[in-house]
Amino acid sequence: MKTYTAGLEGVIAAETEISLLDTVQEKIIIRGEDLIDLSGRVGYAEIAHLLLEGNLPSIEEKEELEGKLNKLSEPPAGITEVLKALPGTTHPMDGLRTGLSALAGYDGDLENRSLSANKRRAYDILGKLPAITVNSYRLLNGEGSIKPNKNLSYSANFLYMITGKEPSQLETDIFDRSLLLYSEHELPNSTFTARVIASTQSDMYGALTGAVASLKGSLHGGANEAVMYMLNEADSASEFEQLMYSKLRMKEKIMGFGHRVYMKRMDPRAIVMKEALKVLCDQKGDHRLLEMCEAGEKVMEEEKGLYPNLDYYAAPVYWMLGIPIPLYTPIFFTSRTAGIAAHVIEQHENNRLFRPRVHYTGK
Amino acid sequence: MKTYTAGLEGVIAAETEISLLDTVQEKIIIRGEDLIDLSGRVGYAEIAHLLLEGNLPSIEEKEELEGKLNKLSEPPAGITEVLKALPGTTHPMDGLRTGLSALAGYDGDLENRSLSANKRRAYDILGKLPAITVNSYRLLNGEGSIKPNKNLSYSANFLYMITGKEPSQLETDIFDRSLLLYSEHELPNSTFTARVIASTQSDMYGALTGAVASLKGSLHGGANEAVMYMLNEADSASEFEQLMYSKLRMKEKIMGFGHRVYMKRMDPRAIVMKEALKVLCDQKGDHRLLEMCEAGEKVMEEEKGLYPNLDYYAAPVYWMLGIPIPLYTPIFFTSRTAGIAAHVIEQHENNRLFRPRVHYTGK
Repeated sequence: MKTYTAGLEGVIAAETEISLLDTVQEKIIIRGEDLIDLSGRVGYAEIAHLLLEGNLPSIEEKEELEGKLNKLSEPPAGITEVLKALPGTTHPMDGLRTGLSALAGYDGDLENRSLSANKRRAYDILGKLPAITVNSYRLLNGEGSIKPNKNLSYSANFLYMITGKEPSQLETDIFDRSLLLYSEHELPNSTFTARVIASTQSDMYGALTGAVASLKGSLHGGANEAVMYMLNEADSASEFEQLMYSKLRMKEKIMGFGHRVYMKRMDPRAIVMKEALKVLCDQKGDHRLLEMCEAGEKVMEEEKGLYPNLDYYAAPVYWMLGIPIPLYTPIFFTSRTAGIAAHVIEQHENNRLFRPRVHYTGK
Repeated sequence: MKTYTAGLEGVIAAETEISLLDTVQEKIIIRGEDLIDLSGRVGYAEIAHLLLEGNLPSIEEKEELEGKLNKLSEPPAGITEVLKALPGTTHPMDGLRTGLSALAGYDGDLENRSLSANKRRAYDILGKLPAITVNSYRLLNGEGSIKPNKNLSYSANFLYMITGKEPSQLETDIFDRSLLLYSEHELPNSTFTARVIASTQSDMYGALTGAVASLKGSLHGGANEAVMYMLNEADSASEFEQLMYSKLRMKEKIMGFGHRVYMKRMDPRAIVMKEALKVLCDQKGDHRLLEMCEAGEKVMEEEKGLYPNLDYYAAPVYWMLGIPIPLYTPIFFTSRTAGIAAHVIEQHENNRLFRPRVHYTGK
């Protein structure tokens, strides 16, 4: 028996070929590649291929994958019925969780855990999740469901379904980049949850359903929405600065800064999203949001020695892309599905049931 | 960084006052009480009180709890609509998972993680789960839904909804005892899953939804169903003995024996269920199933040095109570909800986010 550390901090819980937060070299490594390097030269579909197949796709393979996701993009009509039956008071992440859970009933090969069946399943889920994510939100808000536009790329269609209008190339590129940055991040709680569930030989739908539940938590995926609500409490850089100081005085938790496992500098993914925010602000000729974020960044560095994480800059980017705030975390999950599915596959390929022990402190 | 052990074997992942598998004293301890002792003198409702409140109830408290669960036993009509919308090909555990996930939308106080809100939530879920479990199965099989009979005790009503007829006192007592034995078992994969999810400050519905996904796995809760399908492959003790030998020769995995964390003898819970099986066989004047089980027990002890676990004897008991096999694991989950909910509450009361690390073996 080993000594106990709360939250398994510092404990190695899995061997993986998928990714590493390299805190020494200060890099996010995805199957041997530097995620930030990749974000400058490939898109989300290529990262999904890298995660699920182990290598970046050729041009032909990339086109094949885009075509496959496109063909798989429409969920069964029964899923819409399930989402329609949910009360309007349902949280969007809970709608997504329920829709994804229900999707298992349509997998005619559910008991097959082979590598090829699991990959087929991963692409199928990845293809259908944008529609489930968006329509869960729309139906809960009394709007009609929207069908995927099969003429658009994966990311363009996702953004189209969210906003209801075809995005520009710039908007698509920035949204696609955000998905890429969110796609994989070693073993955060949601990915760990999925591996733990998969280790009982339960299926990918169950593992991902558990991961949605995990990502919903305010200490995990909910941070990007919290950042935007906070930004919306102010109207200018000076107002936001005052808001931050007042929150610090009240000892309120400020979301979007720091990370348990991280470098002693700004999250490199946040730098990429900050650049995207600048481009969107330039285009709109309105730099208010960027200036507010920079003011907040300065306050937190000076007062707490903390630096922005991805959520801090993804939130205002999503705002400027016209994305409703309650969809920020569901979008994060949809993107992360590529990474989590890769972890589920890896777990099934070399499995050992997770079954730790406790330190009993009772009578 | 500590050394890596696959599946966190031997790693302490939580401090808990709830339960311990005491492998030295060979006892299952629930809040200071011996589970096997308890099974002879209290029922499931009392164990639920012990798990959630920390102490066994007085007679008045027990009656209050039975009354409360009774009053909470009918799920919202919308849940039936969700279950109806699922395709008939849905696995019963996936139906339960989806129904439980959907229930979150009806909790008007969902963001409240206080002890009192969490307890209220636990009782509400516990009250509604028998109806969700049974109706998920019934609706997937094209049968109409059934309403709880509010004149019956928790366990009698649960069994009534399963079989469609009011159970005898003996049947109720035996079913109630099985629920008690399944109610809590330290930190198996499903309970661990729930604590991991809850540690993000996600809510009890999400934590339990993830736990359903975990319990579904063939290395976890699915074993009781596998045992019954195996028993049904034979018609007599000698046939079953031959079947076991042939499975051993073919190196097939035989479910219902052994357990990673356990004593070097028969699971004490299995002994209680074996006694119940004998009572049911005596009453029916047909000892075939008991004889088959004993024959299998002997083969496994002689050939593999393995002893029956709870699933091995719960399965034939459920069969003799007229319970459809696909409901065995959903029933196990419903019972275990008392324990898992107690763990979710404990996690929320003293939280630290689960976020372990990996050993990167990639490029």
